[in-house]
Amino acid sequence: MHDFQSLKSLIEAEINALQLEGNPKELYEPIRYSLSLNAKRVRPILTLAAAELFGGTLSKATKPALGMEVFHNFTLLHDDIMDNAPIRRSNPTVHARWGTNIAILSGDAMFVKACQLISEAESFCLKAVLDLFYATALEVCEGQQLDMNFEKISSIGIPDYIEMIRLKTAVLLAACLKAGALMSAASKNDADEIYAFGENMGLAFQLRDDLLDVYGESKFGKRVGGDILSNKKTFMLLKAMEVADKSQKEKLDFWMSPVPHQEEDKIQAVTEIFNTLNIKGFTENEIDFYYQKGLKNLHNISVGIERKGVLLNFTESLLQREI
Amino acid sequence: MHDFQSLKSLIEAEINALQLEGNPKELYEPIRYSLSLNAKRVRPILTLAAAELFGGTLSKATKPALGMEVFHNFTLLHDDIMDNAPIRRSNPTVHARWGTNIAILSGDAMFVKACQLISEAESFCLKAVLDLFYATALEVCEGQQLDMNFEKISSIGIPDYIEMIRLKTAVLLAACLKAGALMSAASKNDADEIYAFGENMGLAFQLRDDLLDVYGESKFGKRVGGDILSNKKTFMLLKAMEVADKSQKEKLDFWMSPVPHQEEDKIQAVTEIFNTLNIKGFTENEIDFYYQKGLKNLHNISVGIERKGVLLNFTESLLQREI
Repeated sequence: MHDFQSLKSLIEAEINALQLEGNPKELYEPIRYSLSLNAKRVRPILTLAAAELFGGTLSKATKPALGMEVFHNFTLLHDDIMDNAPIRRSNPTVHARWGTNIAILSGDAMFVKACQLISEAESFCLKAVLDLFYATALEVCEGQQLDMNFEKISSIGIPDYIEMIRLKTAVLLAACLKAGALMSAASKNDADEIYAFGENMGLAFQLRDDLLDVYGESKFGKRVGGDILSNKKTFMLLKAMEVADKSQKEKLDFWMSPVPHQEEDKIQAVTEIFNTLNIKGFTENEIDFYYQKGLKNLHNISVGIERKGVLLNFTESLLQREI
Repeated sequence: MHDFQSLKSLIEAEINALQLEGNPKELYEPIRYSLSLNAKRVRPILTLAAAELFGGTLSKATKPALGMEVFHNFTLLHDDIMDNAPIRRSNPTVHARWGTNIAILSGDAMFVKACQLISEAESFCLKAVLDLFYATALEVCEGQQLDMNFEKISSIGIPDYIEMIRLKTAVLLAACLKAGALMSAASKNDADEIYAFGENMGLAFQLRDDLLDVYGESKFGKRVGGDILSNKKTFMLLKAMEVADKSQKEKLDFWMSPVPHQEEDKIQAVTEIFNTLNIKGFTENEIDFYYQKGLKNLHNISVGIERKGVLLNFTESLLQREI
């Protein structure tokens, strides 16, 4: 078995070896660019780690694992158009660099590339892997649509938000793990448990991401307080609205109103309200809730505990980012 | 065997029966809308006709045939964003009706739906059908990119144009036929011949479409002369530039210059130059060239001639649109 750092190295080498030199170059250059940017490669690492957990060999799982990474980068590419985001991983987004049309089309081509890689799964599990992948891809689209819808709806509850991040983020992590399990002929029960593990850890991971947006250090070109500035209805803001008293609620409403605010003032004021309401504590509890559920899923998998260390270490490395 | 009209009825019924009622509705409504518009259903008819040509049963080929239609409509949806087209099949395009973001995302979801349907091919031919479909999908993206590139390049030759329409239009028709053949376990040779038949007929079909844009009657909400107005470098314009003398070339250059022109004047003037140069005759010859090549491919298929009538009738019905 390989530790997650060596799985990452393997994936980087395989990404570099992908044949993406086609014509016309306007179509393929943005694909190479997207995949060349510094990234954590979480999804293919999960697929390979799951494949090894159940005793499979890496070589059979590598192409579909890469497919998951290409698919993920395709969703980022199209999401960045929809969100009008100028920067991704400290670099210009594809639509900012090449224009919207090329971004739409090279994204489409990237999706096809992802499908090609995933369809390299061995024939004994091909249909199962495809069914899982396509169902997940639809869910990711649904999550992105909900995310866009929520910008315009004021009455979002915490369960709505959790469902949105489940679809937009957690199910793909879950599917990456389950795909690895399927390719190693894991039992149905184990495949379901590792899916649930990924779903719960995915929710924990996204909630941690939200927390870092307020309490983290600026990193990866993402500014601290971005969610506050854009009034994004994260768990943190929704929780704050839930537990705030009348005067705190009015203050939050004021800072979220379309009145022009100084950016730094807004971030500071909302953060102070979060501090008063212990939103950090609430969020850490919520993260821990999903983390513990995920650990239980991992525990339930019928594989010796000594084999589970890689996935556990990797998950911890993702969740124990400094605050 | 079924004639092509009854294949079309079958496909319409199957499209109506597709489960496209998911949530959020913003994602699924544009998909239902796109598929509900009046359409010729050429691609799934080809798949089903090819499946029957080689003795297969329709029921095994129906889902993948629908997948081809859903894929085609997905490409139209995204192309309409890129071309900023307001109207498709006499109705508002998805991006005109719901906005660009929803058009991008519901297009992506539609692509996933197409993949799901195509992956319903029987397991004995699943990998072959997927390989064909994905390779074709990439080529269609390449064709669309070339089409966009050609708007900005002045030195396009007729072979460039033929290659562009081959990728953008012909290969999908060819792949629809070949998919039907693969699902009916046709020989490699027959599968290749029916692919070539589709490719040649696809080129003929697109050239006929170009011809109708100048010499046809307004139909399906497409205005006559649209290609002339947009200076589209079709076979007809490229041929005209090739055979024009100096003064005719100058006239063409004048009408294609960014100087503002009265639309009707421009259409009339360019059409008159085309008439003088017998561009209609050149184009009909070119159509006939590919048509004859296609007939030869059909002839080469090792199936009794009495089985080939459906495909032949359908092809003729597509090509003998009134001029």
